[in-house]
Amino acid sequence: MTAVKARGAYAADQPVVPLTIQRRTPGPCDVQIEIAYCGICHSDLHTIRSEWPGTLYPCVPGHEIVGYVSAVGQNVTRFKPGDIVGVGCMVGSCRQCDACTHGLEQYCEHGMIGTYNGPTADPPGHTLGGYSQRIVVDQEFVLQIRHPKDMLPAVAPLLCAGITTYSPLRHWQVGPGKKVGVVGIGGLGHMAVKLAHAMGAHVVAFTTQESKRAQAHALGADDVVISSDPAQRAAHRGSFDFILDTVAAPHVLDDYIGLLKRDGTLCLVGAPASPHPSPSVSGLIFGRKAIAGSLIGGIAETQEMLDFCAQHGIVADIELVHADQIEMAYERMLRGDVKYRFVIDAATF
Amino acid sequence: MTAVKARGAYAADQPVVPLTIQRRTPGPCDVQIEIAYCGICHSDLHTIRSEWPGTLYPCVPGHEIVGYVSAVGQNVTRFKPGDIVGVGCMVGSCRQCDACTHGLEQYCEHGMIGTYNGPTADPPGHTLGGYSQRIVVDQEFVLQIRHPKDMLPAVAPLLCAGITTYSPLRHWQVGPGKKVGVVGIGGLGHMAVKLAHAMGAHVVAFTTQESKRAQAHALGADDVVISSDPAQRAAHRGSFDFILDTVAAPHVLDDYIGLLKRDGTLCLVGAPASPHPSPSVSGLIFGRKAIAGSLIGGIAETQEMLDFCAQHGIVADIELVHADQIEMAYERMLRGDVKYRFVIDAATF
Repeated sequence: MTAVKARGAYAADQPVVPLTIQRRTPGPCDVQIEIAYCGICHSDLHTIRSEWPGTLYPCVPGHEIVGYVSAVGQNVTRFKPGDIVGVGCMVGSCRQCDACTHGLEQYCEHGMIGTYNGPTADPPGHTLGGYSQRIVVDQEFVLQIRHPKDMLPAVAPLLCAGITTYSPLRHWQVGPGKKVGVVGIGGLGHMAVKLAHAMGAHVVAFTTQESKRAQAHALGADDVVISSDPAQRAAHRGSFDFILDTVAAPHVLDDYIGLLKRDGTLCLVGAPASPHPSPSVSGLIFGRKAIAGSLIGGIAETQEMLDFCAQHGIVADIELVHADQIEMAYERMLRGDVKYRFVIDAATF
Repeated sequence: MTAVKARGAYAADQPVVPLTIQRRTPGPCDVQIEIAYCGICHSDLHTIRSEWPGTLYPCVPGHEIVGYVSAVGQNVTRFKPGDIVGVGCMVGSCRQCDACTHGLEQYCEHGMIGTYNGPTADPPGHTLGGYSQRIVVDQEFVLQIRHPKDMLPAVAPLLCAGITTYSPLRHWQVGPGKKVGVVGIGGLGHMAVKLAHAMGAHVVAFTTQESKRAQAHALGADDVVISSDPAQRAAHRGSFDFILDTVAAPHVLDDYIGLLKRDGTLCLVGAPASPHPSPSVSGLIFGRKAIAGSLIGGIAETQEMLDFCAQHGIVADIELVHADQIEMAYERMLRGDVKYRFVIDAATF
């Protein structure tokens, strides 16, 4: 065990404070990573404040991790000290169920092990995430980063925001000749616009804010629709092959189902705290349309996404913050005052 | 024009009564059909009582039609007098849009023309359905019936209840090695059980009534679950490739989403008058599951379904009624007191 500095909270109503946590000595299959950068995801906030059930304390969030390998176990063949690597939302799974053997560890039938708040034999009995100087992870859940070093802060959000949008775009075969909508231009949505554009699709961004129009175009959107304007929506009626909805606040899904072509899918990647208004069944029946959900992506697909992004020069748009600014970042994130992801400089822990 | 006897209503609050309607003289592409049997679908009741918007009066329902060809237009090549034929929910579409050219006339982008209550140049300006002695239909919307003559009364419901369930079972590739659920064992559901069984799937019927257990097995269900019993449902958790939900009354969709495998689909073919409770987004995200809808089927697929049923000896389970018994049939249908479809003997009009 080694002691490392981290940031986290001791209870749901306590602020993020400095704390010291233990990391295990690397086992035969482990990769020890000196964390360089860690993105701040809305899930971090939901968890640390117990807005979702089941948070264990002390809670150290963070699952958008980029760093350098500092040691490897004797059985580790795919990584060596000095490698630039990433860790996303998972650090383990059963590896034997149908999902795992299909490279879909995120849907592990026995439950994937989250990078934080997951079960582990290490102290304190639950996993502690990337708001820390170091992490030790089984090599099967470590990703190679092939971006240039100066891009690394902006690579971190790819590990959650990137794969959460890349996976459904690939699964529903977004590409040339396809028209895809992205609802919500935030941490997830801005990545979805960049990725769908790089995949060759015609991309339409939906945002409530006129002020984001130019930004959305700059991200790669071919068209921008102010989603609160029925006339702007109506111009796209029945025209989308696929719509990726990144908005976790409750909203009227029928507004988007009506914009899908026959056999189109509206895919949700955000889970609202209270339900969306119940969607119209007729809206689905007349057009054989679907509402689906998608959760991050498997390890192989996460590597594919990272390589795709490296090849296309894609990173997140970020604002780099210090460890002392995490609470401020949470408050600004809640106000939507971020373009589009905060990333913590781990040198400041 | 020729005058033919029919049954219908003059207003939403008026009963079904005898009336005389006009049928056009067959045009070059028309098939004139002497109706032998017509099924009673719940849509008939919704329409004639204006429970759905837009009913035009007088209203003559009926879109599960079986009969004999009595005359054909000069350009009709596929039918001749004496042929046994069927007409389902559609008598026209634009034939030029993407949906029509893909054989999916039910999703015609300009609106398919319903067998009743659809736009037409014929008097009274809207189509009149199968509760009548005769109908004249463009040959492109007429189906060949290859069942033996003594089965014809029970063939009629295939034209709506049959294709409404066959099409999604095929679209979502139900067959050997697949586990499929059928929710609701009524007019649609009993057909779905028969069809999915004939397709070679493992079929589980969901019903609220213990009394339907033996009947569901007799229809071809491998297993029967009393849907109101959480323990019986839980035994099937995460095990279904596909669930076809035929229940139009509002109910908790999450109960079925939880029973799907990863990437499974819950397909709805009934539109409730008031919304289902809003489904859980997390239930979709954790497993990349989908809720979809499906509407009848295209003309080519309807012919395929009829031929599949003829080959497998499949018909509906019906109760034959006289024209004077339509109102009684409606009342019993509303009580669920029918196994499983009423069919009108057109000789009694």
